[in-house]
Amino acid sequence: MTKKHVLILGGGFAGLACAQKLTDERFRVTLVDRWNHHLFQPLLYQVATAGLTMSEVAQPLRGILSAQKNVTTLMDEVTRINLDCRQVHLKGHVLDYDYLVIGLGAKTGYFGHPEWEKHTHGLKSLKDAMQIRREVLLAFERAESAADAAETERLLTMVVVGGGPTGGEMAGSLAELSRRVLKNDFRRIDPSCAKVHLIEAGPKLLPMFPGGLPEYTLERLTSMGVHVHLNSPVQEVGRGFVQMAGERIESDIIIWAAGVEASEVTRTLAGIPLDRSGRIEVLPDLSLPGHPEVFAAGDLVALTDPKGAIVPGVSPAAIQMGQFIAKLVTAEAEAGTRPAFVYWDKGSMATIGRKAAVVSLGRLQMRGFPAWMMWLFVHLIFLMHMRNRINVFIHWVWSYFTWQRGARIIQP
Amino acid sequence: MTKKHVLILGGGFAGLACAQKLTDERFRVTLVDRWNHHLFQPLLYQVATAGLTMSEVAQPLRGILSAQKNVTTLMDEVTRINLDCRQVHLKGHVLDYDYLVIGLGAKTGYFGHPEWEKHTHGLKSLKDAMQIRREVLLAFERAESAADAAETERLLTMVVVGGGPTGGEMAGSLAELSRRVLKNDFRRIDPSCAKVHLIEAGPKLLPMFPGGLPEYTLERLTSMGVHVHLNSPVQEVGRGFVQMAGERIESDIIIWAAGVEASEVTRTLAGIPLDRSGRIEVLPDLSLPGHPEVFAAGDLVALTDPKGAIVPGVSPAAIQMGQFIAKLVTAEAEAGTRPAFVYWDKGSMATIGRKAAVVSLGRLQMRGFPAWMMWLFVHLIFLMHMRNRINVFIHWVWSYFTWQRGARIIQP
Repeated sequence: MTKKHVLILGGGFAGLACAQKLTDERFRVTLVDRWNHHLFQPLLYQVATAGLTMSEVAQPLRGILSAQKNVTTLMDEVTRINLDCRQVHLKGHVLDYDYLVIGLGAKTGYFGHPEWEKHTHGLKSLKDAMQIRREVLLAFERAESAADAAETERLLTMVVVGGGPTGGEMAGSLAELSRRVLKNDFRRIDPSCAKVHLIEAGPKLLPMFPGGLPEYTLERLTSMGVHVHLNSPVQEVGRGFVQMAGERIESDIIIWAAGVEASEVTRTLAGIPLDRSGRIEVLPDLSLPGHPEVFAAGDLVALTDPKGAIVPGVSPAAIQMGQFIAKLVTAEAEAGTRPAFVYWDKGSMATIGRKAAVVSLGRLQMRGFPAWMMWLFVHLIFLMHMRNRINVFIHWVWSYFTWQRGARIIQP
Repeated sequence: MTKKHVLILGGGFAGLACAQKLTDERFRVTLVDRWNHHLFQPLLYQVATAGLTMSEVAQPLRGILSAQKNVTTLMDEVTRINLDCRQVHLKGHVLDYDYLVIGLGAKTGYFGHPEWEKHTHGLKSLKDAMQIRREVLLAFERAESAADAAETERLLTMVVVGGGPTGGEMAGSLAELSRRVLKNDFRRIDPSCAKVHLIEAGPKLLPMFPGGLPEYTLERLTSMGVHVHLNSPVQEVGRGFVQMAGERIESDIIIWAAGVEASEVTRTLAGIPLDRSGRIEVLPDLSLPGHPEVFAAGDLVALTDPKGAIVPGVSPAAIQMGQFIAKLVTAEAEAGTRPAFVYWDKGSMATIGRKAAVVSLGRLQMRGFPAWMMWLFVHLIFLMHMRNRINVFIHWVWSYFTWQRGARIIQP
């Protein structure tokens, strides 16, 4: 009998977790990704600020899956999904499937202002991160040989939009880069004069964190030299500026960490309900309405689980979904008999530069150094499956004591 | 009294060594480089074959020189040198100098066939290395989803031109990549079917090595699966092919390690004698004829030292020249009273893949594993000044036992 073919779209947390759990030889698995690597997104901001190198947060998918002989990896881009013909169209060719798992993830969202994209940098891919690193490092280089003070100030002004974890970590890391890492590297300019603005539409930073953690984050970032703008929805973004109500910031480096929307491929799913940001409204078992053989996982899924929890677009949720789907497929459970996916909230954490982080685990709340140690520990565990963990760890220990960042190489 | 201004062009081995030795506060030093990093070129082939990451062979110049307060680093490109006005024209602006040190290095040379450049990859810069890595890894990815056997074979054919150390190391490393590193990563193709051709115009590989070392190298590379073509001068290079006398190889990946010529900036030096490949024919004290205040160092220098040794274009020679010039400048020695530069040959070594290398130190000759250990040791010493040595070392130890290469990330 021919093996059933499970086609997984996307090698992110969801797709990879699903593939790794599909070890049953009765299934032939194909994993398709645009790139040849799995990306550890939570540390992407470190690549953007020259703290880590590309290969310390990314790992070749083939390397991860090389031992799993029933998995074939293809580097190609998904253009269209035809649910009725059970076919997926790639740039290269067309693939059939018995089971389909859609884990194509999310991209940067601009709240209905796609025209803002070309003026800003997202922070979703290695490419984004490498571009930001390049722009930021070049800005300091240009400032060092700038003609006048006005040009210098403009070059050394950076804006981060979005007060969530990504935005907060990014702003904090940029502040450290200018105030500590590059401190002694220049002769004509003082890098610590660089202005880092963090813009948040709502009344507080890290709104999803309880207790005093948002206030603590605000206080920490401010003391690190970050200019935080609360209650400041962005009205307009153009070439070299961000416009808020009553305030305009001139900057060529605008990092957009304010919103995400699902991969546009979801728009090609005929007759499948999507929410405003293009996320798939899946059934409780993560399958698509009317298509029990098709599942979606990760942050392109819009789902409220049986316990009433809105499943967030974070890596633990994506991994849990991927594994849940792998179990259903392996069991070949009929649509009616399937359990519902239940999200296990492992809590959330965010780091605010060196020695400072916030952690929220159920009732437990932590801040400052202990929280930072915990953040470090958890991320090292996460990185465990990556061969780079030793290097990353040494990098971190080294950076902690020397304030050096090894990846300060401008992308040729 | 105003400090004398020493302008150093190029942050390679020569320029950096010179800057680092110019600690005398009586001098104001400006170091200009096209990039923001110093590159450890001897390991560039490892970046090209995904063995090392960019930031493991490159280090920010500002980081290296941050403690040396009399040195200013500028990232800019030299367009023209005006010896009579004592001015150097950069893309950005114009700089005056009291002393000038030209260490702009060499670029890939095509023996009067500049039109071949666009069909080949050089291996002089990080950009070259990253392009080669990208092309090589993409070739395997494309082959995995190739339509027919012919296309697969074409995709998996790689050519290295030039049987010197760079070419030999490159070919060996490519052979290992396909036969060992990627061994289990693919399902449809067998990566070890990849053909690596090494083309040398002369009768032997590594001709500069004595005794049986060239023969040993040939035997090793052949046993590693490299197709070595001796006595095969390249007659023509075009889009996707290399033509030798009687043989033509179809390949989209052609790596050119056959020749170098001096940076074209030397052509702007009015009235200064250059050799065929544009290298500056300096006086014994490394200064330019008629310009005792201008020196040249590194592989854009053509010089035979008093002991009759032709100074080779290798990093030890460049470092020795840079330091020699720094001493002359610091002593402010008059033209007539200066000693001649004498090259100290520390011997030469080349690695031929894992566990195999050749070493020649005066009378001493080594090959195989002991030579490889020596190569490893010497290169770690070289890397000592780089903060990355620990990472590189771990990378190497890791790769040695696992055959993994961590940098197998396709450049986004």
